[in-house]
Amino acid sequence: MAQLPRAVRDLINVFERLPGIGPKSAARLAFYLVDAPKSFVEELSGILLRLKREVKICRQCFSVSDAEICEVCRDEKRQKNLICVVERAIEVIAIENVGGFNGVYHVLGGVINPLEHIGPEDIRINELVERIKGWTPNSGVSDNLEIILATNPTMEGEATALYIKNEILKLKNRGMIKISRIGSGLPMGADIEYADQATLNRALEGRREI
Amino acid sequence: MAQLPRAVRDLINVFERLPGIGPKSAARLAFYLVDAPKSFVEELSGILLRLKREVKICRQCFSVSDAEICEVCRDEKRQKNLICVVERAIEVIAIENVGGFNGVYHVLGGVINPLEHIGPEDIRINELVERIKGWTPNSGVSDNLEIILATNPTMEGEATALYIKNEILKLKNRGMIKISRIGSGLPMGADIEYADQATLNRALEGRREI
Repeated sequence: MAQLPRAVRDLINVFERLPGIGPKSAARLAFYLVDAPKSFVEELSGILLRLKREVKICRQCFSVSDAEICEVCRDEKRQKNLICVVERAIEVIAIENVGGFNGVYHVLGGVINPLEHIGPEDIRINELVERIKGWTPNSGVSDNLEIILATNPTMEGEATALYIKNEILKLKNRGMIKISRIGSGLPMGADIEYADQATLNRALEGRREI
Repeated sequence: MAQLPRAVRDLINVFERLPGIGPKSAARLAFYLVDAPKSFVEELSGILLRLKREVKICRQCFSVSDAEICEVCRDEKRQKNLICVVERAIEVIAIENVGGFNGVYHVLGGVINPLEHIGPEDIRINELVERIKGWTPNSGVSDNLEIILATNPTMEGEATALYIKNEILKLKNRGMIKISRIGSGLPMGADIEYADQATLNRALEGRREI
């Protein structure tokens, strides 16, 4: 049996370690790059190096950034007393793309997941608690701090939101802190007939007066 | 709206140009690499450079190779009078992985596809014809050359196979050349009930006496 050139084999192996890419996709991508123009492959190689050199993690919210403090945290027009807690930086971008949110973020970097040995200390819950502790009200309209727990509506996301809520309730300044959870229920355009039970239950529980 | 760091945006743009990767997958991959260890990203970057430096195209069969002539073409035990014509190098590897084929290959580098402006001159049909013209029988057991047309059983693959067959029939030494097409019909383990019409038709046409 003929063997693949070593560089192709190595590339397939590395691609297989990426999320959502199985052995067949990895081979397809590798062979695509074998045929692709040299300039394209070199461009990709160069961007990967730049990624690690240029991309920083914001010291305040832990989202991706070009600088030490990200654009959102630097922006004086954003409400600093409204913190949206998300699992990953990619979710910050998703929310920013919608464009309706005017607060700031806190990126946990994951969720509590005992099966994968990820405990509360492995994600940025302490950093969030410190951030809330250090919060001092401005002499503005609202002196209250609102924390929106926007972890995903999965088992792990729900558990993480609950854990964070309990940690916040232990704080001395808890009286000034409002905690909320993003809405969950049927997605827009969905069909009740085909909704799963958990979603339908949540939609009924989360009903709003109109 | 906050913007992504430039390197992340560039990476997403490049990933989107890869086959089978849409905007969402591209973003997921890019963010995965933002969080991945520096060593992993540098490894991937380095392999990409090596790919273009090390991987060669075999001068005889146009498959991928570590050397000027690939392992299969160099192998004296392979039947040089049995040429399997495939669309892409990845298919050579698929057939080699099965392990039952003892001939050599010819990689076309694509199929004739008028909609994408790919004509017969854009793929390696001339090279195949020259290869067949230049073929001189050894004083071996069989003096005949067999060409297996193993392009995919798609519209374009079928048309390309037919085109190649006609080109071969124009050759002076056509009398010594056997042309075959890979078998097509129901895949192993399939269910006749759920087979599409074209496949079922082909399976009936391609029936074999047992």
